[in-house]
Amino acid sequence: MKVAILGTGLIGASIGLAARRWLGARVAGHDPDPGALEAATRRGAVEPMSSLEEAAAAADLAFVCAPVAAIPEVAAAALDAGARVVTDTGSVKREVVSLVEGGGGAGRFVGGHPMTGSERSGPAGAAAGLIDGAAWALTPTGRTDPQAAVAVEEAVRRMGAVPVRLSPERHDRLVGLVSHLPQVASTALMATAASSTDEAAMLLAAGGFRDLTRLAASSPELWVEILLANRDAVREAIEAYGDRLRLLGAMVEAGDGKSLSRAFLEAKEARLGLAARPQARLGVAILAVPIPDRPGALAEITAALADRRVNIEDLEIVHSAEGSRGTTHVTVGEGEAEAAIAALAEAGHEAAQLT
Amino acid sequence: MKVAILGTGLIGASIGLAARRWLGARVAGHDPDPGALEAATRRGAVEPMSSLEEAAAAADLAFVCAPVAAIPEVAAAALDAGARVVTDTGSVKREVVSLVEGGGGAGRFVGGHPMTGSERSGPAGAAAGLIDGAAWALTPTGRTDPQAAVAVEEAVRRMGAVPVRLSPERHDRLVGLVSHLPQVASTALMATAASSTDEAAMLLAAGGFRDLTRLAASSPELWVEILLANRDAVREAIEAYGDRLRLLGAMVEAGDGKSLSRAFLEAKEARLGLAARPQARLGVAILAVPIPDRPGALAEITAALADRRVNIEDLEIVHSAEGSRGTTHVTVGEGEAEAAIAALAEAGHEAAQLT
Repeated sequence: MKVAILGTGLIGASIGLAARRWLGARVAGHDPDPGALEAATRRGAVEPMSSLEEAAAAADLAFVCAPVAAIPEVAAAALDAGARVVTDTGSVKREVVSLVEGGGGAGRFVGGHPMTGSERSGPAGAAAGLIDGAAWALTPTGRTDPQAAVAVEEAVRRMGAVPVRLSPERHDRLVGLVSHLPQVASTALMATAASSTDEAAMLLAAGGFRDLTRLAASSPELWVEILLANRDAVREAIEAYGDRLRLLGAMVEAGDGKSLSRAFLEAKEARLGLAARPQARLGVAILAVPIPDRPGALAEITAALADRRVNIEDLEIVHSAEGSRGTTHVTVGEGEAEAAIAALAEAGHEAAQLT
Repeated sequence: MKVAILGTGLIGASIGLAARRWLGARVAGHDPDPGALEAATRRGAVEPMSSLEEAAAAADLAFVCAPVAAIPEVAAAALDAGARVVTDTGSVKREVVSLVEGGGGAGRFVGGHPMTGSERSGPAGAAAGLIDGAAWALTPTGRTDPQAAVAVEEAVRRMGAVPVRLSPERHDRLVGLVSHLPQVASTALMATAASSTDEAAMLLAAGGFRDLTRLAASSPELWVEILLANRDAVREAIEAYGDRLRLLGAMVEAGDGKSLSRAFLEAKEARLGLAARPQARLGVAILAVPIPDRPGALAEITAALADRRVNIEDLEIVHSAEGSRGTTHVTVGEGEAEAAIAALAEAGHEAAQLT
């Protein structure tokens, strides 16, 4: 099997690593930036090719990992160069898919979007593990060759991701809601607080505020491109969010504690339901472990798990709205939960399984 | 010195522990719930008294750690019983202070609000460390005896917190913005996404969405009481936030990438400025440490620090908007940053100091 990676940044290089490891594929890569191609090659993610055409020629599957605006052109070139099936990794799908299909690419092109990423950027931060367990949206249309869709789906699944089939429109509406809206909400919250002329505002900002505004530190360039490419869905999501805020605001103004309690309880239950499925990954368990206030407490917790070779999938310190210290939520594989709890108990930490 | 703790839940018991340890005080406690009083006593936080009056009698300083609605009555009783100075720990101040002062408590009562808390609740979760480094708002008015204000400020500082003097109105406006608004924003975001009838929505919800909606799992009872007690400031904050969202939405709708970039950049810079002052604590350094994808990686990081007796003040795994894995942000004492970086380097982890 030959896989082509067209664009060897963080996502492209990660797919290259996963394709080598899990598909046993020969992976040819190209990037218009020679530095990115060289770094991905050094990282072991691709075999470097001097042109897009050379990389795509006779590829069973080509991944277009370019910025959203460049995807239609790169996808068309890959199809022309002889790639049998082409997919992409862009954060928005309706415009991209319609441009590729309109440009003669209907049939062998399948829109895609792995719901993954990292604080790091560029091929140096690449890892096959970035894909493992991530939801991976695929957006074939009525014009897509069913065989092509199955081929991409199969490759995605074998690389450890969870394929989710959606229409391009549905994909864009959903990421508008669960990915683009949170970014806008975070940026708006930071801007609202920062616009206070009271210097004490930031002095009183505790853990909850920090959690909510963390995304506001994301790359403006990246996000402006995404938001503008998904204009309708983002506008719709912001409106729905604004309506919900107004509703809560009206309850506060009216002193309507009963409605407010109901709304807060419903949101609480929805959030607790979500915690059972972090990053859409199945088969994980979340353990809550209180953190004692002394040096080395976290080290004891993580070492106890490392000693048993339990992989920590995720770890977060959960703060209350006004709190600083907190409880650790440790995500481990479902099959390892029992061993993890036993290991923690032995080390003197009482863990409770949340899911 | 005699300190009275009236209400021995999480905050009251934590103050009791800190007062014993850092003020060397004799700490008398009372709680209308015998179970809470017994637990706080077992925790070593207070010496139990059979009545509020007995606890407050001849106390140099009484902390009223009751639910907001009960504070005026308990504060008045403590003053009547002979406590020299009385303060409270309620999350809103204007109404509380005005009720206590109107009820004859002006002079010896100083409104207070430690900006701390924990996921845990009740005296069992209490710790002196909950107070250490937290901002602690104090809201004396023109009617407060200056000596009383100084006494509370001094005690707060000796217990390791950072006193911040504000008028009750200013306090309420600020917490409306940086504490109550984030709670409403989180609950509204969760409700907006949960109202989607598309079951795939939660499947695509990644790290960013989880960060933003974590607070939505907070206690409805607690929050409804707080929001209603700070009605005006909360309404004002929700409005300002709604305006900011509408502004961003209009930029998206108009395709105004230039204004959008500027707004995102400003918010990003404000957020990065905030990271330098987590929980209002001075004298800390934040280190960014990439997490390799293998069992034990976090244990290596935390163990390297524990070996050098570096206390981890806070630790969070920072996700990108769509990402799962990430970078650890480790908060340590400023004076320990260099030793921490060296210890991590020795263990093979390249840490960068962010602040």
